[in-house]
Amino acid sequence: MDIAAAKAALMHLDLDDNPAAVRAKSRDFFWYSPVLKDRLDHLSADFVVMPKTQDEVIEVLAACHAHDVPVTVRGSGTGNYGQAMPLAGGCVLHMQNMDKVLEISPGRVVTQPGTIIRELDRITRDQSGQELRMFPSTAGTATIGGFICGGSGGVGSVRWGMLRDYGNILRIRVATMEARPRILDFTGRDLARVSHAYGTNGVVTEIEMPLAPAYDWVHVFLTLDDFTHAAALTHALALQDGILLKLATVCEAPVAARYFQRFRGHVSDTDSVIALMVAPHSMDGFLSFLSHEPGARLIYRSDAHDWARDPGPAYEYGWNHTTLRALKVDPSITYLQVRYAGPDLLDKVGAIRARFGDELIQHLEFLRETGVMTAAGLTLVRFSTEARLDEIIRIHEDMGCMVFNPHRYTLEEGGRQTVDARQLDFKRQADPKGLLNPGKMIAWDVPDWDYSRAYDYARMRH
Amino acid sequence: MDIAAAKAALMHLDLDDNPAAVRAKSRDFFWYSPVLKDRLDHLSADFVVMPKTQDEVIEVLAACHAHDVPVTVRGSGTGNYGQAMPLAGGCVLHMQNMDKVLEISPGRVVTQPGTIIRELDRITRDQSGQELRMFPSTAGTATIGGFICGGSGGVGSVRWGMLRDYGNILRIRVATMEARPRILDFTGRDLARVSHAYGTNGVVTEIEMPLAPAYDWVHVFLTLDDFTHAAALTHALALQDGILLKLATVCEAPVAARYFQRFRGHVSDTDSVIALMVAPHSMDGFLSFLSHEPGARLIYRSDAHDWARDPGPAYEYGWNHTTLRALKVDPSITYLQVRYAGPDLLDKVGAIRARFGDELIQHLEFLRETGVMTAAGLTLVRFSTEARLDEIIRIHEDMGCMVFNPHRYTLEEGGRQTVDARQLDFKRQADPKGLLNPGKMIAWDVPDWDYSRAYDYARMRH
Repeated sequence: MDIAAAKAALMHLDLDDNPAAVRAKSRDFFWYSPVLKDRLDHLSADFVVMPKTQDEVIEVLAACHAHDVPVTVRGSGTGNYGQAMPLAGGCVLHMQNMDKVLEISPGRVVTQPGTIIRELDRITRDQSGQELRMFPSTAGTATIGGFICGGSGGVGSVRWGMLRDYGNILRIRVATMEARPRILDFTGRDLARVSHAYGTNGVVTEIEMPLAPAYDWVHVFLTLDDFTHAAALTHALALQDGILLKLATVCEAPVAARYFQRFRGHVSDTDSVIALMVAPHSMDGFLSFLSHEPGARLIYRSDAHDWARDPGPAYEYGWNHTTLRALKVDPSITYLQVRYAGPDLLDKVGAIRARFGDELIQHLEFLRETGVMTAAGLTLVRFSTEARLDEIIRIHEDMGCMVFNPHRYTLEEGGRQTVDARQLDFKRQADPKGLLNPGKMIAWDVPDWDYSRAYDYARMRH
Repeated sequence: MDIAAAKAALMHLDLDDNPAAVRAKSRDFFWYSPVLKDRLDHLSADFVVMPKTQDEVIEVLAACHAHDVPVTVRGSGTGNYGQAMPLAGGCVLHMQNMDKVLEISPGRVVTQPGTIIRELDRITRDQSGQELRMFPSTAGTATIGGFICGGSGGVGSVRWGMLRDYGNILRIRVATMEARPRILDFTGRDLARVSHAYGTNGVVTEIEMPLAPAYDWVHVFLTLDDFTHAAALTHALALQDGILLKLATVCEAPVAARYFQRFRGHVSDTDSVIALMVAPHSMDGFLSFLSHEPGARLIYRSDAHDWARDPGPAYEYGWNHTTLRALKVDPSITYLQVRYAGPDLLDKVGAIRARFGDELIQHLEFLRETGVMTAAGLTLVRFSTEARLDEIIRIHEDMGCMVFNPHRYTLEEGGRQTVDARQLDFKRQADPKGLLNPGKMIAWDVPDWDYSRAYDYARMRH
């Protein structure tokens, strides 16, 4: 690794090697996890480059390839799995300057990867009345490239499923990490080779995404004094095909009373809260549905409310924003990502609640998985020790609930715990020296690793 | 019933009492059913009025109320349950002149009821890039009012569910049948009082419908040499949340070879056919999905094909257009409407096929029912006798498949075989003399009727 030579070759670009700045840009939101905080907090790259064009990306990759310098790509760094943490140091490739929206047509947008998602939605809305099918709760700061490479789904998944589903990404263009980087376009089933790969096998330079109609979504909060009822109501509502939703979140009491500051005076300690985004033309249907649920209390709708301080969009109380709000109030809180599926999914949630009591607080996001409504639990956990956290996860798995472990920094451990041969095969072609985001794809380094204990990347910088 | 007096009172309107013209306008597509053809073929009203405004509707209703003249409302008469057949004669209220689109906004359109659905879609598309969520396969001739009052779902139900679902109709305005007709608006849960009521308890004068984005749908036909595989493929495709479909139809061999004339040379007697409408930006995802199905052959896509004669839209091979095409070639064909639900729905179809052999030919439409993908069977039947048809239906029911019997002309028998108290209660308020479409709501005439045998309206004109 010849850092000096690589820097010298790239000095004419927008390059930063001020240690404080580099350290700031070497961090993502890994600190949601006390385990990852412990493992990754010390890390810093050696320099940061902010390319403005695809040609500059190619230049950076060629230079780093020539000098054996690792390259970790990042957007805004809102990932929670340490996706953008430069485990082996080297170069951080920051995509913030590649933020141009290139083309909008019915059902489609072509954009550079560094575009902030909310800004992308603003532009597609202004120009065409359309918006992304799905986005993370961090849309206000996250980039579309970061979402594609490090995310799985989010706000909108209740209607559209997950990013990995056919049709939810249209095209990804990547630059390879070779002496002469190639530019390759991926569509259809080949998208799986480079999407959600943490930038381990290519640097995304252009993205084509499907669009849905943009509506003035009505942000709604409901309270119920019984979580089981609240979860069942949210599930039933999400199954209403004629009521167009973009978000269906339910948080067990006392999440709202304790962690949602603007809810003070509107909720009690015993209120579970449902957060929804409802299309304006679906409000009548939604209210009709609600009229069958006398236990539910509508406390806020964004199109007509009397709250002194506006709480902001509902999605900033859902997905990992729920966790963020809890963490801000109580730094000892961490979380899990649990998949509840099958016709008895709410019974599974009930069994987990009964098993753990106050150690966990339930937070469910409803989403479609291959046409079937399921729930993702972004369960809040009162953290004690790493060993106990592992035990909690094991108990979930033993009770039939798959966990996508957000306390690991590798693709395999944070995902389905299996090697993705498509991603690995493409890394062999696109990054023969293994310089792209090293340490994140276990299969590259230790093909026979088993998942009984946390992976520890041998070449992590100390 | 004083026909002469009513006619005299309405002579200044667009009124027709020429017997041949009246008879032509007293018919719908009841003749799809040999049973209904036998029962209803002789019917004719006494005169037809074609109102141009809501005020004229009120005038007709007041006059007919005063003179005890039955009023049967109709659109284009494309219903198959005899919805618009004037069982007791009297006045046919033909809505064709009330065809103005009144207001278009994001997610909504307000229209008069007599607008032809394809024309409504053309206008909303031209002015706003939007279209109806769902429409019948007869969209080219059917009116939106007829669809709301006599239909259940159709093209688009694979995504949006059924008309009866909350949110799939926004508002219905009706005029009542009283001395002084009232104008009432229904929204939300109250819509169930007047939607799909065959005009038995009010005359619809204005409709507000939700809109979805309009795309240049790609019409696609696939063939497979195995129906079970074809049905499973269509089901799996319909479950793909990221692939936007508007139609997912599968027809057993030899439907296409025998009844789809423009398919000649493209299909064999053993080809089952899948008909799809795919959003253009979902074609890549669709083709990726298809690449896992080597047994499926793509024979036509509307955006790139070499057929000498264009087959026209895919939806005109689905829903009851399949039946219509079969009937045109073989007048002895009739059909059923079967609901296959539950996780074993395709096993049920298989059991029915095994039980009946060549007497039935399967045709499935995939649709969402409260968030779950189900199939409607518009099964083709080689008709022998009415008794055998009833037996076939009974066997379906015994095998766990509900039948919406299209060989009956009442709301109850063609629907869920139960009285809809909401519709009956509203008829008591809105049509105290029972003059609106008499004979179609059993509960009005014979509250204790049971469904073991076909209802026979005692006052039917002979």
